[in-house]
Amino acid sequence: MERWEKLRARIEEIESIKQAAGVLQWDQHTFMPPGGAASRGRQLATLEALVHERITAPSLAAQLSALESAPDGLDTIQRAALKNIRREVDQATKLPAALVKALAVASAAAVGAWQQAKAADDFAPFQPHLEALVDLKRQAAGHLGEAAHPYDNLLNQYDPGATVAELQPMFDRLAAGLRPLVAEAAAQPQPEPITDTVPLEGLKVLNRRIVAALGFRDSDGRLDESAHPFTLGVVPSDVRLTTHYHTDNLLGTLFGTIHETGHGLYEQGLPSRPGTLTDGAAGTGMHESQSRFWENVIGRSRPFAGWLAEQLAVDIPSLKMDADRLFGALNRVAPSLVRIHADELTYNLHIIVRFNLEVALVEGSLQVKDLPGAWADQYEQIVGVRPASPAQGVLQDVHWAMGLLGYFPSYTIGNLYAASLRYAMQDALPGMWDQVRRGDFDAVRGWLRENIHSAGSVVDAPELLARVVGDRDPVTDLITHLSERRAAAARLL
Amino acid sequence: MERWEKLRARIEEIESIKQAAGVLQWDQHTFMPPGGAASRGRQLATLEALVHERITAPSLAAQLSALESAPDGLDTIQRAALKNIRREVDQATKLPAALVKALAVASAAAVGAWQQAKAADDFAPFQPHLEALVDLKRQAAGHLGEAAHPYDNLLNQYDPGATVAELQPMFDRLAAGLRPLVAEAAAQPQPEPITDTVPLEGLKVLNRRIVAALGFRDSDGRLDESAHPFTLGVVPSDVRLTTHYHTDNLLGTLFGTIHETGHGLYEQGLPSRPGTLTDGAAGTGMHESQSRFWENVIGRSRPFAGWLAEQLAVDIPSLKMDADRLFGALNRVAPSLVRIHADELTYNLHIIVRFNLEVALVEGSLQVKDLPGAWADQYEQIVGVRPASPAQGVLQDVHWAMGLLGYFPSYTIGNLYAASLRYAMQDALPGMWDQVRRGDFDAVRGWLRENIHSAGSVVDAPELLARVVGDRDPVTDLITHLSERRAAAARLL
Repeated sequence: MERWEKLRARIEEIESIKQAAGVLQWDQHTFMPPGGAASRGRQLATLEALVHERITAPSLAAQLSALESAPDGLDTIQRAALKNIRREVDQATKLPAALVKALAVASAAAVGAWQQAKAADDFAPFQPHLEALVDLKRQAAGHLGEAAHPYDNLLNQYDPGATVAELQPMFDRLAAGLRPLVAEAAAQPQPEPITDTVPLEGLKVLNRRIVAALGFRDSDGRLDESAHPFTLGVVPSDVRLTTHYHTDNLLGTLFGTIHETGHGLYEQGLPSRPGTLTDGAAGTGMHESQSRFWENVIGRSRPFAGWLAEQLAVDIPSLKMDADRLFGALNRVAPSLVRIHADELTYNLHIIVRFNLEVALVEGSLQVKDLPGAWADQYEQIVGVRPASPAQGVLQDVHWAMGLLGYFPSYTIGNLYAASLRYAMQDALPGMWDQVRRGDFDAVRGWLRENIHSAGSVVDAPELLARVVGDRDPVTDLITHLSERRAAAARLL
Repeated sequence: MERWEKLRARIEEIESIKQAAGVLQWDQHTFMPPGGAASRGRQLATLEALVHERITAPSLAAQLSALESAPDGLDTIQRAALKNIRREVDQATKLPAALVKALAVASAAAVGAWQQAKAADDFAPFQPHLEALVDLKRQAAGHLGEAAHPYDNLLNQYDPGATVAELQPMFDRLAAGLRPLVAEAAAQPQPEPITDTVPLEGLKVLNRRIVAALGFRDSDGRLDESAHPFTLGVVPSDVRLTTHYHTDNLLGTLFGTIHETGHGLYEQGLPSRPGTLTDGAAGTGMHESQSRFWENVIGRSRPFAGWLAEQLAVDIPSLKMDADRLFGALNRVAPSLVRIHADELTYNLHIIVRFNLEVALVEGSLQVKDLPGAWADQYEQIVGVRPASPAQGVLQDVHWAMGLLGYFPSYTIGNLYAASLRYAMQDALPGMWDQVRRGDFDAVRGWLRENIHSAGSVVDAPELLARVVGDRDPVTDLITHLSERRAAAARLL
């Protein structure tokens, strides 16, 4: 027990440093004056180096190995902790320091090059940077140990337990299942978008009321503004959401906030077991399932549109928005070139394209120089539109420039999980849609808290989901969910 | 040179950790949700422990000693750096870890006990806590090395270079010089205070305009709200001010903000030489000289009152305040029991009482159990009023509960320095008061920046002051300044 406590205390110290870095990052994007940028970079690099120094300390590895080889007397949580600590230690130890530094240098340069390339609408200046990054990420994947597919090691940095072998057929089935729905929508007239400019004050008040109504606790969190909305959970009792108010994009603003609130509710609902690494989120995909559950499953439903229309009438009375029109606008479908503007139905197609391309790049079956053409072909084939320019195509996202290979799948994993959670929840809470219609989100939030949030990261996301939804098939559930959603929207046309 | 750079890089790492801790403290007092308190304590304790680990590392001490014993080739800044790094290393190394921890534990308990004792208006429950703290501080003073007086070692934690031998006669002369001024004021009718309640929005706008007018750069800092105003300089290009808006205390709010702006201008004006410890403020007293220069020397002057009255007419037109009435209200004099409400004239008497008592406690000539009586006697003798209760007497300040012995003198050191800076500045800038009257503070700020701020901490405050003001006597200057101020105020009665 003493050996366990020594290890736990060391991990807790590392967590505290990471929490401090989190607060600094939050500040960087919310309140830091422009002059603070250079020193903030140094502060964050220093904290990151401290974390790395601590997690790779040989004495920590020795303590961990000793416990692993004699785990008698450890309970379930402690055994899960050893597994998760081992994963962190390995991730940090297996990557050579020179490679980590090369990745940091390469991605810093690549982000700058990407910005210029996107502005110039020209892939060429970005190409050598992406080639370097892909090469480094392939090296990283190699260092991270044996895997069925080298891409698995990159996936697992975000979604422990995910594999190409499992995702590829799921994504293929999903693409196939979405095809008729997209075709059907393409043949229908689509409702009008909402383009009204709304007053800033009303928009702010409404945003805050929605965040509170969904159950985000003010005593344990905040909502601020930043250029791009994000959520940072320092600890479950200190969770920072941000939003960005676009008075000419009412629904974009509100649903961006609802999305972040979904992340924030997960963070506020996590357990607290410092130093065990069992109290965090169960991966990026599970995190995304929570934001997308609130944004899409709940937020774009007809019951929620009914409630939201009533709230709009209170805070932005000039808008005069009825529930059906709102529901229609929330569910317009149109295959498009840019992921972040995609509708709920076609969004996953954007992710599937990126997944296919990333897998091909990492396994070496696609060269970076051929990426723009492959991107265009895949978009034409899978999304049904072909980009005319790199800026609207292969250059649209910053992720690859940041070295985030293996991250995109989380978005669709999130949608898949959210769909299965929907149907499992409906079985458990037959009155949930009536409650949503009344603006009572307690039971929905409580169910997620009990089944997902409070579980922390004792088990990986695939196992946690299976424990909660049984043998439900997420692909079938997502297709069913989107079919039902399409049918409800089509009734209004 | 390589040895120097290695040492410098290690100190820069420590500075970055301290800067991170600073941001966390700022957040704690401005935006952190209540739920964040416990984890914030752990994060700060972790960073503090990291700083201590780094600064007391034997390998750092070895590098420092090697450079100290062979300083050939080091320039003036590098030699000053070695002196300041040595001071930091010694401060951290000489105090046994057990003593540091005992002080932290004792002061945490003492702050709680002090709050209860103050609320109950009873010294008894606080007495054992203060006894423990005084004992620990005496031990700390003993560990910090040879000194003419044990209190010197406590003083020097805040004001390097200050000594009882130097301060005691200065403070005695100051008390004697103030006595006739206080008696004169007591015989005069005093102007009316300003008790109007003002609109919050106008108060906020005016506050921000004053901060900007004094020259605080928005690109390199912020103004936020907190329960008690404070200033934190993360780095010169990231300086955080806070204020607290009291709509029923116009002048308290404005002059609290001006005070913090004085601190903030110092922070923004410091040089940047990471890893050298020569680019910080030259001690707490010098820092206080900057806040008090702007708050008192400039802020309570008749020229500033003229400018401020014009600004009030713009932002709070309902107030109808003429410059003479404003100047009078800013310079009301009345001996009082509570330091933080004291006027500019009698303020220093409050500090002198605390200094006398602290010196006696640390040298052992006064026992904590006799402190309330000694406090009352000293107040009667030096300030001219006798507290009827501990809450308005010995329990009024949190400093001692926090273990801050040796800190109070900084306030009067600041006033002394500010007075000499005033007269040296007047010689250098004959037009300064006309500029202040017009709201043009560039020359005043520029002079402080050139002479004080940009000097950093290459030399200690007493030497820095002497370099700037020559052989001026700060005690004479402060008495002259306050006499002139009294005369100007009396003309209006």
